[in-house]
Amino acid sequence: MIDIKTAQELVLLHSSTITKIVEFKIENALDYVLALDVTSEIDMPPFRQSAMDGYAINKANHSTYSVVGEVKAGDNNNLLLKVGEAVRIFTGAPVPDTANAVVMQEKVTQDDSLINIDGEIQDNINIRPRGEQIKEGDIALVKGTVIKGSHIGFLASLGVTKISVYQKPSIAVIVTGNELVSPGKSLAFGEIYESNGVMLTAVLNELGYKNSSLIKVKDNYETTKKSLSEAIKNHDVVIVTGGVSVGDYDFVSKALKAIEVEEIFYKVKQKPGKPLFFGKKENVSIFGLPGNPAAALSCFYIYVYPLLKKSEGATTTNLQRIVIPMISNYTVQGNRAQFLKAKIEEDGVEILEGQSSAMIRAFGNANALVLIPENSTQIQKGENVKAILLPNK
Amino acid sequence: MIDIKTAQELVLLHSSTITKIVEFKIENALDYVLALDVTSEIDMPPFRQSAMDGYAINKANHSTYSVVGEVKAGDNNNLLLKVGEAVRIFTGAPVPDTANAVVMQEKVTQDDSLINIDGEIQDNINIRPRGEQIKEGDIALVKGTVIKGSHIGFLASLGVTKISVYQKPSIAVIVTGNELVSPGKSLAFGEIYESNGVMLTAVLNELGYKNSSLIKVKDNYETTKKSLSEAIKNHDVVIVTGGVSVGDYDFVSKALKAIEVEEIFYKVKQKPGKPLFFGKKENVSIFGLPGNPAAALSCFYIYVYPLLKKSEGATTTNLQRIVIPMISNYTVQGNRAQFLKAKIEEDGVEILEGQSSAMIRAFGNANALVLIPENSTQIQKGENVKAILLPNK
Repeated sequence: MIDIKTAQELVLLHSSTITKIVEFKIENALDYVLALDVTSEIDMPPFRQSAMDGYAINKANHSTYSVVGEVKAGDNNNLLLKVGEAVRIFTGAPVPDTANAVVMQEKVTQDDSLINIDGEIQDNINIRPRGEQIKEGDIALVKGTVIKGSHIGFLASLGVTKISVYQKPSIAVIVTGNELVSPGKSLAFGEIYESNGVMLTAVLNELGYKNSSLIKVKDNYETTKKSLSEAIKNHDVVIVTGGVSVGDYDFVSKALKAIEVEEIFYKVKQKPGKPLFFGKKENVSIFGLPGNPAAALSCFYIYVYPLLKKSEGATTTNLQRIVIPMISNYTVQGNRAQFLKAKIEEDGVEILEGQSSAMIRAFGNANALVLIPENSTQIQKGENVKAILLPNK
Repeated sequence: MIDIKTAQELVLLHSSTITKIVEFKIENALDYVLALDVTSEIDMPPFRQSAMDGYAINKANHSTYSVVGEVKAGDNNNLLLKVGEAVRIFTGAPVPDTANAVVMQEKVTQDDSLINIDGEIQDNINIRPRGEQIKEGDIALVKGTVIKGSHIGFLASLGVTKISVYQKPSIAVIVTGNELVSPGKSLAFGEIYESNGVMLTAVLNELGYKNSSLIKVKDNYETTKKSLSEAIKNHDVVIVTGGVSVGDYDFVSKALKAIEVEEIFYKVKQKPGKPLFFGKKENVSIFGLPGNPAAALSCFYIYVYPLLKKSEGATTTNLQRIVIPMISNYTVQGNRAQFLKAKIEEDGVEILEGQSSAMIRAFGNANALVLIPENSTQIQKGENVKAILLPNK
């Protein structure tokens, strides 16, 4: 059985990269990964810009200036100032080429068309230099960036309207089990509601993978084989839940062998999620997640999420980790390394109640997973632990 | 001028709550706020469920059991076991009422229809009790919860298909300025590309507010008044950027007065975002954000985001705060309290380059805002600071 770090490395090592590039309007590119560097076609700001409401001056060695005009934001006049002259100017307006400082209006006394300025005026004060934020030809955003709202704002400020991004991987979620009934129907004895598929497609949706396919399969070797085979043919990533343990009716393992999926690893020294399977068939990545919902979702964040990000060319593939102190003592059960559903508060992190693999409930209150190394026994209040921040919390 | 804490309290105090409740399919309810408690209509699990592949037994005071049948997941038989009898059972299958333990198959030796079990068997081991996760009639999810993927999974497991959520606030984003040109056109001297509106609607979209209206207004008193007045008539929240400082051509303040928007506060002791306006007209909340994009986005996260969450009934309104050590020394400029764009790394937080209000670029690399109290001068490496986690990073 391999350890968590090895499993994570093997997943990234065997990920296949999407090569298809699509062009999107920036406002539709949220959560896509930039496929080509974006170069700025302008200086930003594109002109020397006033950072204040006040007076642009051509500095003289006296304190009285005559006001010869006005420039407001959006004006395109470039007034000529002689030494000792000033123009009224407003925030965002272009500073005339002949001005060498902007004086805040609060520091000026005005008398008709004359202003008086007290004290020393620093060269170019309150003037944002042309190209201060970025210069024409410089890289504004690098390939591999996952596009967020603030990037869209920055690109808009440079006049960019469209960007090239990688196509998202096509994902199939396969749920297996005779016991699974669609919500809305009533349950017979021995049946439960199908929730892993609903949960994984909802979490994928939340992360910007909007069009995953949800496929339900009964515990039958032939249908399992056929569904897996078709899913692999039509998708980049196939996520199966359930059916990968050793039970006589767990047909997934047998079907994966039969359709020649190469096993990269099976079983990881971790809790939850020991019976995790990862395999490849040509460029398609196949995950066999545990059937227990909390185990399936933990494995999704720790293994599937990085593969999805890597496959679409993102520079950062793992979720953000932080070192953070425990708010309470915690007694560790078992000796495998563990991912515990946890809530980060202002002063530290709290391990939540209900850590059973079968219980998805605690995930609703969790905003992090705390990683407990193997052979830990007792973690003391105040002790630092490593936490993985869950996305969209 | 008021301080940050007072401003935040005033915003929440004056927020108006959306009262319209809509019913959504759970898979469409992502990012909506639950308007009514959801009560479970079933016990979960709905029956005593095997947590293992192995043998369900009716315990005897000897180690040999005769295997009288088999139960797999989804079977609805409830076999009758006499003392000393066993059935083959699989993970997720219903444990017969007459069984009182499930023994892992790894701990059993089988000989034809007899099995031998070594050692003491704990009562009810490897059996998940009926209703272990939740009992029929118990509250599954409380009103005020912002619905995320894992909640959708949990609700699906209880057979819930639809939930009641609050309607989202209707939001208008108004951008003002003669200097603003739509991306795609070319810039004349003195013009810049409009980016605040694109940025704010993209960030709103990212947070699940999909249908905000973007309204562009020239610096003209009458059109500003008319646009503001119409926006207030048709929306729950109006966010204006620019035009709220003291300049002669900043018509927003005058227009807001003219249409009788009540000023709750104007100006906050903070950097960036000093000229922040918050007002109300009946149930409509109006924010005047600074025109500088980085200042506008900071104010959005610190003031607008909590109001939006409060207005739609969310229990948690603020973004998550954490106390975290600095990775490097940082010299504070100025004496106002500051929100600094920062990047949380595994071992602490780093203040990013490019903190100017005019520069949105640093927000692209930021996953947090660090709050520096007023009159700070030097923050040392290793010193704890308060950071606000940005959403969707």
